[in-house]
Amino acid sequence: MSNWPGVGVTQTQFLDYPDELLPFKLQSGETLPELRLAYELYGEVNADRSNVILVFHALTGSQHASGWTESVPGVDKWSEECQTGWWSGFVGPGLAFDTNDYAVLCVNYLGGCYGSTGPSSIDPRTGKPYGGSFPELTLSDIVDAQLPLLDHLGITRLHAVTGGSVGGMMCLSLATRHPDRVSKVIPIAAGLHTTALQFVHNFEQTNAILNDPNYNGGDYYDGQHPDEGLSLARMIGHKTFVSLDAMRLRARGEVSGAGPPGYEMRHPLESYMWHQGQRFLERFDANTYVRLMTAWQHFELAAEAGVDSVAEALERSVGHEYLLFTIDSDVCFYPDEQDDMRDQLAAAGVSVRHEVVSSDKGHDAFLLEPHLFESTLQDFLSA
Amino acid sequence: MSNWPGVGVTQTQFLDYPDELLPFKLQSGETLPELRLAYELYGEVNADRSNVILVFHALTGSQHASGWTESVPGVDKWSEECQTGWWSGFVGPGLAFDTNDYAVLCVNYLGGCYGSTGPSSIDPRTGKPYGGSFPELTLSDIVDAQLPLLDHLGITRLHAVTGGSVGGMMCLSLATRHPDRVSKVIPIAAGLHTTALQFVHNFEQTNAILNDPNYNGGDYYDGQHPDEGLSLARMIGHKTFVSLDAMRLRARGEVSGAGPPGYEMRHPLESYMWHQGQRFLERFDANTYVRLMTAWQHFELAAEAGVDSVAEALERSVGHEYLLFTIDSDVCFYPDEQDDMRDQLAAAGVSVRHEVVSSDKGHDAFLLEPHLFESTLQDFLSA
Repeated sequence: MSNWPGVGVTQTQFLDYPDELLPFKLQSGETLPELRLAYELYGEVNADRSNVILVFHALTGSQHASGWTESVPGVDKWSEECQTGWWSGFVGPGLAFDTNDYAVLCVNYLGGCYGSTGPSSIDPRTGKPYGGSFPELTLSDIVDAQLPLLDHLGITRLHAVTGGSVGGMMCLSLATRHPDRVSKVIPIAAGLHTTALQFVHNFEQTNAILNDPNYNGGDYYDGQHPDEGLSLARMIGHKTFVSLDAMRLRARGEVSGAGPPGYEMRHPLESYMWHQGQRFLERFDANTYVRLMTAWQHFELAAEAGVDSVAEALERSVGHEYLLFTIDSDVCFYPDEQDDMRDQLAAAGVSVRHEVVSSDKGHDAFLLEPHLFESTLQDFLSA
Repeated sequence: MSNWPGVGVTQTQFLDYPDELLPFKLQSGETLPELRLAYELYGEVNADRSNVILVFHALTGSQHASGWTESVPGVDKWSEECQTGWWSGFVGPGLAFDTNDYAVLCVNYLGGCYGSTGPSSIDPRTGKPYGGSFPELTLSDIVDAQLPLLDHLGITRLHAVTGGSVGGMMCLSLATRHPDRVSKVIPIAAGLHTTALQFVHNFEQTNAILNDPNYNGGDYYDGQHPDEGLSLARMIGHKTFVSLDAMRLRARGEVSGAGPPGYEMRHPLESYMWHQGQRFLERFDANTYVRLMTAWQHFELAAEAGVDSVAEALERSVGHEYLLFTIDSDVCFYPDEQDDMRDQLAAAGVSVRHEVVSSDKGHDAFLLEPHLFESTLQDFLSA
């Protein structure tokens, strides 16, 4: 086991919603006739089930936060890149989320493509993939869908909830909408709102996919997939996850391979970006991408909580302890967004601690540099 | 006349290259069998032809820098938006480029879609539009194509050359490759190199167009045009031309009109960006966009000048007087790019003055805010 990163060899488990919870009702009023969750659980849940930490993955992440999961039954997008847990440097014995002390739970989003019910799942009413008929989601729908799993596991109150990027937004959704289900809240490199730049970047990406004639309104599973659109969307998104300096460094090599038909790539940065887009096709589904982008795009903390203002939503977190992380070189969720989050939490009377980590890796530092977060997380979780 | 902006009612003129200059040879070695330039000239050329200022327009600009040009013969993209000169606040009697003292010349780029030879022009060898067969260009090809017009007008040495954005890069190309043809050089909001962020943004835009099946390798003039791709490219580019604050302000209104098929726009910023993309379709050609993007993408000041280093290229400008402008809120050509330009010019022994203007409008301030530039330009031109 010790040869594997994080928690060693792992396996995805599934929960199929029992009939009494179906159909699952979304915030839009639409329903899903069935709901399956793919999840992984690391470490031991203690006797009073008080040591569980829920991790929300980021936009294109999976339930496989740590260790080595060879494959997931029924998931054809489980590429080589998926096999090593995306937070293996954070979750495991002696790590930031220490599995000697805590049980760590991570669930593939509703709408996802790694085993939870999503657009590529079979709609039991038709026997075919949902495709374009899969309903729109909110970030809070994704959060809510995970609560029955907590019930199933007998977890009344989470020790902590954490997540980076949109996963951090989901932490806020959970804490403000179900305040009795969690004690500590740890949004990393996240924000209270969708910013103007995110609006624009997300809209570009959605357009890139919708423009692809193979997208066909989301009904493409029996034909060509919208690879050109999804690949371009990934390129547009990717640049916000890394720092420009990191991109320049990563792209130092030669131009390799062919690029888009009809265009001669001449600079390593073109080749680097092209490769990012192409590689993504092996591991992600365009419909899932569009559904999650749209949920992020329209995230409204207050409206989703059914209150009139963000301040009112945050007041529900009085009694929680927050730890916010900022990455100083982040150009996806800029540092001033976490400053704002801290100030608004404090104004609402919520206990909040704010750490700024210094990295040259941009937004992705929350995936790549566990040492920047580890001791702070350990202290905060055990305090 | 005084009711019209800038220089009043204007008209585009044409120069068809005489046979002795044909075929026109590009830096790639490829040739064009004919070459027509569309240009406008404002003010009077003085007796010794020493008062001419050449203006390079920006990526999607035209020869129509100032005044009112109702239409241009043979140009179907001359939309309403084109009719008012894009620099009418800069070029005219008493303005920054004062047509009482100077004659101002502006030429549609080779490769353009406003009357100069470009991909939508008829290839005399086939009787059909060049389309995908139109050769790749460098920024220096575009510069060189304008020199015969100077000869035709009897202009041996320009009083000044100016331009914003890629037009500023062309100023550098002209000054370092044909140093005897100009005295004063005024690059505005420009850079010496294509930066990493520009590489990425430009590559995304080119991909957006190439991905559109209607692009068809550039051969689309007798069918559907690649509107979805060109519109997305414009959205991707547009956000770098304005400041985020400006976008937020401009997008304060309601969501108006339908957006992309299969997507419900819910935020004014989406609606604003969508509108930017749609409006652009009326006035620009996708092939021209791809050719100019590619020329920008691969701009190499040293290589295009046939020397080994930027320093060596800049040494050719000894004897010129430079005036550089920086816009402090520019996120297309960032202020540190002009700092670098200033430092490298100074290191090469070139006379250089550098002005930073403060604006909340981002890159587009060089189009929108003549008052920030006027007195500095007047002083510099008359000094």
